[in-house]
Amino acid sequence: MVRLTGLAALAIAVMPRFADATPMAPTPVEIVAAAPSGAWQTIPAGELMLLDLAGGPAGTPRRVTIQLAPGFAPEHVANIRRLVAARSFERTAVARVQDDYVVQWGDATQPPPPGLALHPPAEYQRALRGLAITALAAPDAYAPALGFALGWPVGYDRAAGTVWLAHCYGMVGVGRDMPPDTGSGAELYAVIGQAPRQLDRNIALVGRIIGGIDILDTLPRGTAALGFYAQAGQRTPILRVRLASDLPPAGRPSWQVMLTASPSFAAYVAARANRRDPFYVRPAGGVDLCNVPVPVRRAP
Amino acid sequence: MVRLTGLAALAIAVMPRFADATPMAPTPVEIVAAAPSGAWQTIPAGELMLLDLAGGPAGTPRRVTIQLAPGFAPEHVANIRRLVAARSFERTAVARVQDDYVVQWGDATQPPPPGLALHPPAEYQRALRGLAITALAAPDAYAPALGFALGWPVGYDRAAGTVWLAHCYGMVGVGRDMPPDTGSGAELYAVIGQAPRQLDRNIALVGRIIGGIDILDTLPRGTAALGFYAQAGQRTPILRVRLASDLPPAGRPSWQVMLTASPSFAAYVAARANRRDPFYVRPAGGVDLCNVPVPVRRAP
Repeated sequence: MVRLTGLAALAIAVMPRFADATPMAPTPVEIVAAAPSGAWQTIPAGELMLLDLAGGPAGTPRRVTIQLAPGFAPEHVANIRRLVAARSFERTAVARVQDDYVVQWGDATQPPPPGLALHPPAEYQRALRGLAITALAAPDAYAPALGFALGWPVGYDRAAGTVWLAHCYGMVGVGRDMPPDTGSGAELYAVIGQAPRQLDRNIALVGRIIGGIDILDTLPRGTAALGFYAQAGQRTPILRVRLASDLPPAGRPSWQVMLTASPSFAAYVAARANRRDPFYVRPAGGVDLCNVPVPVRRAP
Repeated sequence: MVRLTGLAALAIAVMPRFADATPMAPTPVEIVAAAPSGAWQTIPAGELMLLDLAGGPAGTPRRVTIQLAPGFAPEHVANIRRLVAARSFERTAVARVQDDYVVQWGDATQPPPPGLALHPPAEYQRALRGLAITALAAPDAYAPALGFALGWPVGYDRAAGTVWLAHCYGMVGVGRDMPPDTGSGAELYAVIGQAPRQLDRNIALVGRIIGGIDILDTLPRGTAALGFYAQAGQRTPILRVRLASDLPPAGRPSWQVMLTASPSFAAYVAARANRRDPFYVRPAGGVDLCNVPVPVRRAP
């Protein structure tokens, strides 16, 4: 008989396995922990953006790590790299935190650095051709079909031949004005709540937060319209922004993302959709796209 | 020509209307603001739970307001009222904050107050019979059908004759151990991230946060397993818990929820599914259940 005490007794959903429990299917966490090295791909250092915010203990910075998505928004990502190289973000701050929606930083009103494309194309979707999709068999209110491509959660339309990134928790996009403006990349936002999928195909997504999202998610909510801070002093300054490739090799962080075409990922999705942990009395038999966060980890 | 400056230029999704804009369909926010008084129902004072946490400025409490759902989990709600009457929560704290998942408070290991049902029935779903449902025509990975009942987001199964509350952002549920335990109500959790719909029909939902969710959502994330705090000193104490009906009438807060059977709510859902704000280049034509938060407000 399984007996529960302490932490386990407090859990509402994820329960540890017990030595005296009967054998059971592995949990999603166990599948990720057991995935072989071949199931992981190292993220290129030029696709890791390191955002150091003020406010750490004793004046230290707090680091948010973003994986960029040049496979989906190459011109916006190129712009972001120009902004990083010009240190443009370092004169700005987190200016907006709207509960259950987005955190926003940067400042599109600052003078653009040389070479910045002020009117990049609307990279809201791309051609499906040439892209391998790992399909997710789930009905959806926003897209004809769902899946994963290049390690990212996507919607796609086989008939139209298009595919696009989905606004899941942690995804990073480019603030813009009214159409036909598409944003330069000088203002970015990250999703910190229920996936606002209505934004899919309406705005350029350029990456996702893979480390330190709690730093953004716990910032005080802004009280002015749209969650902007009412006073400039409430903003969190951005101290330093670099690509990992800007750092000397010895000082570069290294991250890996699970290959969404791997057997480990397939097992992970299946386990997310059919929870067999003893806690569950009724496995759902299905899972939303944004309830399948693609596993990431520090390179071992 | 619409011109954008300042705040509007920074918006990524919700844009104000402009004096020189052409007439357009009202936005969801405008529909809620214009809803007649008949579209609103006042929440009974006995269904408002007021949770005062430590940590406000100059030692003041910070208030989280919860609407209880006796229509779905009557025995668990009765237990929670007993715990409030016995001041049981006031010896406890917020002990767990897991990013993109849940905040949890209370302590099921404390001696139960007299009359507490230690093994309430599994109120994970209820009979559909006699309940009016406002259907939401949206495909879903978790339920055969979706809608709203008694002002709550629900999944339902016409063939099985059952209906259940959905784990949307802000929903409050009862922590429990392994089945057949269902939890007494002495530990509660609130959803603070992407809707964990896999918990639907696996646990008793008893309400939702209608005020002050940002207080919970901005608490530091716990670093021990499952987001529990590693040190007891990191917990946020609960100073006082009352039902609004416990307070003298003059001191009672009063809240209203939009009637989900009202024409205003139907217009709101349609606007959420088909954003016609000029910001959008491609309205989604659909909307997820948990992307339709039921409007609530302070009674005017």
